[in-house]
Parts: sequence; structure tokens; C-alpha cells
Amino acid sequence: MHFMHQALQQAALGLGRTAPNPPVGCVIVAGGEVVGRGFHPRAGQGHAEVFALQDAGVRARGATAYVTLEPCSHTGRTPPCADALIRAGVARVVVAALDPNPVVAGRGVARLRTHGLDVHVGPLADAAVRQQAGFRSLITRGRPWVVYKYAATLDGKISADDARPLPVSGPDARALVHTWRNEFDAIAVGVGTVLADDPHLTTRGVPGGRDPRPIVFDRHARTPTTARALRPGTVLVTGPDARTDAHEAAGAHVLRAPTLHEALQGLGALGVTSLLLEGGARLASALYAADLIDEVRAFIAPTLLGAGLPALTSPAAHAPRALHDVQATRVGTDVLIEGFLTAIPRVDARAEE
Amino acid sequence: MHFMHQALQQAALGLGRTAPNPPVGCVIVAGGEVVGRGFHPRAGQGHAEVFALQDAGVRARGATAYVTLEPCSHTGRTPPCADALIRAGVARVVVAALDPNPVVAGRGVARLRTHGLDVHVGPLADAAVRQQAGFRSLITRGRPWVVYKYAATLDGKISADDARPLPVSGPDARALVHTWRNEFDAIAVGVGTVLADDPHLTTRGVPGGRDPRPIVFDRHARTPTTARALRPGTVLVTGPDARTDAHEAAGAHVLRAPTLHEALQGLGALGVTSLLLEGGARLASALYAADLIDEVRAFIAPTLLGAGLPALTSPAAHAPRALHDVQATRVGTDVLIEGFLTAIPRVDARAEE
Repeated sequence: MHFMHQALQQAALGLGRTAPNPPVGCVIVAGGEVVGRGFHPRAGQGHAEVFALQDAGVRARGATAYVTLEPCSHTGRTPPCADALIRAGVARVVVAALDPNPVVAGRGVARLRTHGLDVHVGPLADAAVRQQAGFRSLITRGRPWVVYKYAATLDGKISADDARPLPVSGPDARALVHTWRNEFDAIAVGVGTVLADDPHLTTRGVPGGRDPRPIVFDRHARTPTTARALRPGTVLVTGPDARTDAHEAAGAHVLRAPTLHEALQGLGALGVTSLLLEGGARLASALYAADLIDEVRAFIAPTLLGAGLPALTSPAAHAPRALHDVQATRVGTDVLIEGFLTAIPRVDARAEE
Repeated sequence: MHFMHQALQQAALGLGRTAPNPPVGCVIVAGGEVVGRGFHPRAGQGHAEVFALQDAGVRARGATAYVTLEPCSHTGRTPPCADALIRAGVARVVVAALDPNPVVAGRGVARLRTHGLDVHVGPLADAAVRQQAGFRSLITRGRPWVVYKYAATLDGKISADDARPLPVSGPDARALVHTWRNEFDAIAVGVGTVLADDPHLTTRGVPGGRDPRPIVFDRHARTPTTARALRPGTVLVTGPDARTDAHEAAGAHVLRAPTLHEALQGLGALGVTSLLLEGGARLASALYAADLIDEVRAFIAPTLLGAGLPALTSPAAHAPRALHDVQATRVGTDVLIEGFLTAIPRVDARAEE
């Protein structure tokens, strides 16, 4: 397996845990073998390169480091990783993608080269950029990367007319969604879904999984204080005048935002880099109309419903918008179709060649 | 390639041309090589076995015949094919599927065995039964096999709110639909589609293609006499009291049917074995509500529309209905999801073992 692929696998161990930092992985290779592995486990803890160098010990001298993101050149909560690689005597550094953080953005690579290290940028850049979508969104736009996930019947319905949830997708699709919940910083629903379904919004069936932070879009603070989604850390996004005393007493963080754009900026300020939007159709349609959905992951079930609500229910017809980088995969009995509405922010591709 | 697969390919040459007969193909194999090929080209012309035997000549003696459907044992417009195989000295007959026609239904195979031929039933039975779905529907239910084909956006819309057609699917999907039109006896639309779109309902871009018979469901005979779909042979399905003088003068065949069920029985009486339903949503929803759709072929395009009409718009919520034998295929930029609501009529599977 490609060493950079192994570095990406290391980075994935931190997904959903590193905000507002990116998930980063690193492997140190000497004599054609991996001699050190590391990943960034959590903001405030060590960076991937540091753990990998510790793991490699003296074998790092003259070795090649594979890193999923450009090593930092500035002192944040930890000293710059570029310097750690230099000090350890690493001879060559392979970087998947440059850091879009304007504080770094090529300076990490430049610092390594100044100290005589051989640096190669680009392998598996697309996969790395995808893995870092949340960080890249937050650092360049100040708001999380928003993924609208839904399960629809073949005739395009996500629920019956009465808005009661339907088990549209199969068990394999539902299990996959739980692995996503484990990897996203936050999970968002509208108050309609809370009132109709009272969802747990937790990660289930994933070994070592942790729950994403629940975000409830609830302009008039209609969420019952007994709702399962309401727990310490839950963000209640309301209009300016909503009465939220009881919700705050229940541990909710209230984010007052006049517009959806401001709501997402507010979530960004809270360090939320990635948001899994799970419904309902009304919230998703409002975010779509405001051009705030970046990616779509739709499970299409081989089932017909006849009547029901579609995934998007905008009041007026829009021009069709094509997704790009589309992937279609069979997941159990369902078909998962994924694609992007937004290009993930990245540093000029030519610089990454 | 499997000899039965070659026989199915022969049969496919007759698709859309043999009604009310089935498409049937035959290859004669001697010494491990195909020495004769034939298919049923059109009702009233020779059966597949006869053409294949003519093609094989004296090499048929002692050979094996692969036939996609049980050879007939009765004298219809042509003498029984079982007898032709016996007379030609064929030693072994491999049959994909038994004939559901109660006049045959195992008697063709029995007749062959009585005359000492070795008969094996079952290879590629599922593929053969699919290819013969129209014939099997007509012979057992008196009505055509109905396939609802549509192209929807990922958010489940087949057209914008104003019912104007949208180029939802890509060029590869549209080309594939034309190959289907070439293979179906008839193509159906509702009058709403005729009024909004004035479709040609022809087969385009298929070498040797022929046009399916247009069927317009038009209770009150609102189809303009200048509509492109109105040509000699077009069936106008109306209510009992519609005024249709002008349509009949334009060459349309008027089928007066109080219910959709009677309309399909009427089409069956006209010899229509297979019907490709191309919209709109209102006609499809009415047929779906009446349990008259047998198969669905949906192209899902990686595009979002926001607002628009779904593929089915029944007035009331139904229980979800699962499709069976589902296939998902990437077709250009789209995903084609196919599945069945009805089991294709077949003779007891154990008899086909």
C-alpha cells in the first residue's frame, strides 16, 4: 500500500476529534519500511509528525516522512513541526497537500527546503483535501463544511406526507451513517425533525466512536427541554428573540443568528469544522436556497412510496445545479450517490505539483 | 460465450417486432460450434427453430439446439416447432424457459422427449424470462408488461414546477432510452405531456430501429390533431364520452376505457405485449395507484433542482413498496436503478430445473 495512504489512515483516526485543527497523519519510512506512525489526536495535543518521530526514534535519521498536510512553520500551541522534522534528521518529506492556512501556505515546505530537505508535494492530494474539508472550510471561510445526507426512495421521497420518519434505507446504509457521525464535528437537524422524531443524534455501533455535537436549528426555541438531542454541548440556533432560559438551564449553548449564513459563521466561531446535516427537508431546503450546502450524500433505496416529501422542497423552481466529483456505490440494498456543490478550498494546484 | 447467450442475442433481434408472439432465438451446435442461427422476426413468419434449422442444413442431424423458449407443440400460424426439430434429427434440445402459454406449458418438451430427444430446461432461464416479459404478461394476464421509465434529479424531481420538461439525464441515458423504444411494442404518455412537450415518441439514433406504437392516455381527447404523437396507428385512450372524430380522421385508433385496468386490457387485445411508460407523473401515479406498473427503470442524475415534480405524486401516502431483482448501473453521468414490482409470469420454477 502507498505510504501516503497509510498516512491518510493514521489521520482518519483523528477525524471528528481535532477541531478546529485538521486531522493529520504521518508515517516515517526507512529502508522501504514504515518505522514510525502518528496522528494528531486532539487540539492542544501533539501534531502527527511529533508522534511519528517519537515512534521512529533514531531510525528517523535519513528517513522519509509522509505527511497528509504541509508541516506547520509557525508556533501555535505546539512548536513548528517543520523544525521537529529538521532536528530529527529526516532527509525527505512527502506532503499530500499544502496548508490553506495563510499563516502556513507553502512556508512549511519552504522552511524544510531551506534546511536541505528534499520535499515532494502532491501524492494523494485529492484524498487528503477531502479528508481535510472541514478544516479547509473553517480556515478559509470561517464556517463548517456542510454535508447534506439523506435517504430517499427511488421516487424521491425522504418521508411520508405526515413528516413521520420512514426507515427508507437499509441496515448497511444506516451503519455507514453512524461511521460518518463519528467523524463529523457536529450533526444538525431542524426543530421539525426533533418534534416529529425526537432523534438521539448519537453514534451507535462504531467501536471507539464518540457522539457529534448536536445542532438544532430552532428559530422560536420550540425544542422541548426533554428532547433527546438536548444535552450539555448541544447548540440551539435561534432567532434573536427566542426565549431560551430553560434550554440554557438544560446545558444548551444558544446561538442567536438572524440568518443561516450568520448561524454557520457562529458555528465556525465555536470551532465546528464539519457539519452533517440530517434533515429535515425544510432546513435543508433553506440552506440549499442560501447556497450553504457544500456536499450531498444521498442513499437511494429501491422502494417506491407514491406520496411523500422530497429531499428538497424549495418554494420556487431553481436552475438545476450539477454535482461534481460524483461517486456512486452500492451499499447493501441501497445506492449511495455522493457529490460536491462546492470545491474544497485548496492552495493553487500548481503549487502542489 | 454460452450458446444460450447467443440464442438470447438472436431473440433480441426480434424484440418489439413479434407481438403478440414472443421474441425467440435459436442456435444449432454441432461439434462444439454454432452451425445454425435463427430468430422469430415477426408474427406470421417462421419461428426461430425453423430458421436455425434451415441455416444448419444437414449439420442439424445429431446436433444440439439451444432455444430461448420451449418449442411449440401445437399448430398455430406455423406447424409445431417441436416436430421440425424431431424431423431434422436433432439429438438434444436445451431450453431456457418453459412456455407459459397454457396450450404449450411443458407439452413441447414432453413431445420432444417422447421422440427420444434429450431435453434440458433451465440455462439462463432468468434472462430469457425477462426478455419474454411482454409475451408472458399478455398470455397470462391479457395486458402488456408496463415499465415506468423516468429520469430524476438526485433530489427526486423529474421536471420543474411548471411541468416543462427538463433535460434531466445525460446523453448516454437518452441514447439508452432510444434502444428501449426500439424494443418495446408501444410507448405511453399522458395528454399533459403531449400538451406541454409535443414529443415525437420515435426511436432515434438506433441503426435499424423502428418506432414503437404511441399510446396517449387522454380521457377527454384534448390531444391536438397536429400533435407529433398522433400518427396512423397511435392509440388514443379516452373516456367513454370523448369526442374523437378529428383524431380518428388523423389515423388514431380510439380505445374507450372507463378504467386504467380496462385500458390495459384493451391494449392487450390490440396485441400490445410491452409498454414503455414515459410520463408524465400524473399518469404514472394513477397507474401506480391502480397497481398496474410492473417494472421501474429510473435514471438518477447527479443534479439538484430544489423545486419540482417527483416521479410519483399520489394524493395519499401509501406503504412503501420494495422493488425486487434490483440492478444499479452507471450510465454516463447518471445512475440507472432498475427493479420489478411484479414477478414476471413463468411456469413453476421446479419444472424448469
